[in-house]
Amino acid sequence: MHFTSEQRLDGDVLEREFTLGEIPGVLWTPGSVSAPVPLILLGHPGGLGKMHPRLAARALGTVAEGYAAATIELPGAGDRPRLATVDEARADLQRAVRAGEPVTEDVIQRLVLPLVDQAVPEWQATVDALLALPEIDGPVGIAGGVTAIGVRLALVEPRIAAALLFAGSYVPRSTFDEARRLTIPLHVLLQWDDEGNDRQQALDLFDAFGSKEKTLHANMGGHTGVPQFESEPGNRFFARHLK
Amino acid sequence: MHFTSEQRLDGDVLEREFTLGEIPGVLWTPGSVSAPVPLILLGHPGGLGKMHPRLAARALGTVAEGYAAATIELPGAGDRPRLATVDEARADLQRAVRAGEPVTEDVIQRLVLPLVDQAVPEWQATVDALLALPEIDGPVGIAGGVTAIGVRLALVEPRIAAALLFAGSYVPRSTFDEARRLTIPLHVLLQWDDEGNDRQQALDLFDAFGSKEKTLHANMGGHTGVPQFESEPGNRFFARHLK
Repeated sequence: MHFTSEQRLDGDVLEREFTLGEIPGVLWTPGSVSAPVPLILLGHPGGLGKMHPRLAARALGTVAEGYAAATIELPGAGDRPRLATVDEARADLQRAVRAGEPVTEDVIQRLVLPLVDQAVPEWQATVDALLALPEIDGPVGIAGGVTAIGVRLALVEPRIAAALLFAGSYVPRSTFDEARRLTIPLHVLLQWDDEGNDRQQALDLFDAFGSKEKTLHANMGGHTGVPQFESEPGNRFFARHLK
Repeated sequence: MHFTSEQRLDGDVLEREFTLGEIPGVLWTPGSVSAPVPLILLGHPGGLGKMHPRLAARALGTVAEGYAAATIELPGAGDRPRLATVDEARADLQRAVRAGEPVTEDVIQRLVLPLVDQAVPEWQATVDALLALPEIDGPVGIAGGVTAIGVRLALVEPRIAAALLFAGSYVPRSTFDEARRLTIPLHVLLQWDDEGNDRQQALDLFDAFGSKEKTLHANMGGHTGVPQFESEPGNRFFARHLK
């Protein structure tokens, strides 16, 4: 891991861009720390540059609660080499949505599974590198991002102790199977009126999770409309399980 | 309204039993107040005597957050005169549940609607009496209880500014119609694995609510298993709308 830039943000937060091999990422840590802090991985839909303002805002909140926050670019997104098969699947999906046709399991698998297969080991390598820093310590949490990536990562990476996930749609069947095998505590957000989201599938996914502690918080509004007042229960969820 | 007993509880809370006509009730207020506090009505399934320990625990939490808390006995419950038609409907319901048969709309209406019709004006009279006390001021919130009573009361009583409801089952169709006309902010709790609860009906009821601000918090476990960590979001919900 190489740090490529460094700046101080409001509230005494240190933001550092890094590369891990070919993968760009961002790390946010408290500007001054006495003891190592737990790590929360900030998920996103891809496109670090475009997402930076929202990610930085989430990171400031996360660091203020006493964690380090980090994220990496998704495979095929931002400045990373395109993934032709995923781009094709995305075009197929957009065509289906525009035509008002159902999005088939085949399209979802072609869109999501290559991302999951490539992203999860990358996130694990990122966790390796970050936990090697003296200012960061386990356990590790996941907050948001592509649902299928979060589920796989939570399942295969034992250092993940808690996950805050969005009950997204476009979830392949295999993710439901993995969800059933999850046992870590989960805090799940659902936007009840999300046009791009199949509500019933999201509820089915919540039902499928094998975890004994799982909570669903549903609110009105679309994809980006999670109300401000949901940040507090999310903070408390992580405080219960990462501290 | 006549106060019939008075005692001090832990945390400087004054618990007073009262009667309003024939209806017994309990009021909890801060032991020492400088300014009048808003009121939260504590709902319950009926049987004040049996419910008292749980109600008092909820009331202590409510008063600690800066409210008065009050409750009254339901029609036909506790020491109040039985309601023969409701008792019959309850026996029919228990018979159906034991036999594994569906509970019909007819049984639900006979069980719930007479309670709603009688209880709602009683709660309104209670609000009248309580708001006349110098130590209590509006606005008023509802917390829990029989869902159909909460919905009707929130709909017809303009002093109700916010309601925390359980997404219960045994909800008659007319309650769905009333739910669609509700506009006040709602915080809805659902126990995902509640054996006695039809989850799909509960989700349909949440969907039906007309309120622009409505939040669903679903957790694992049965009817009485709402986790302790859900009290904080509930408190914050009332703080946003009653203060």
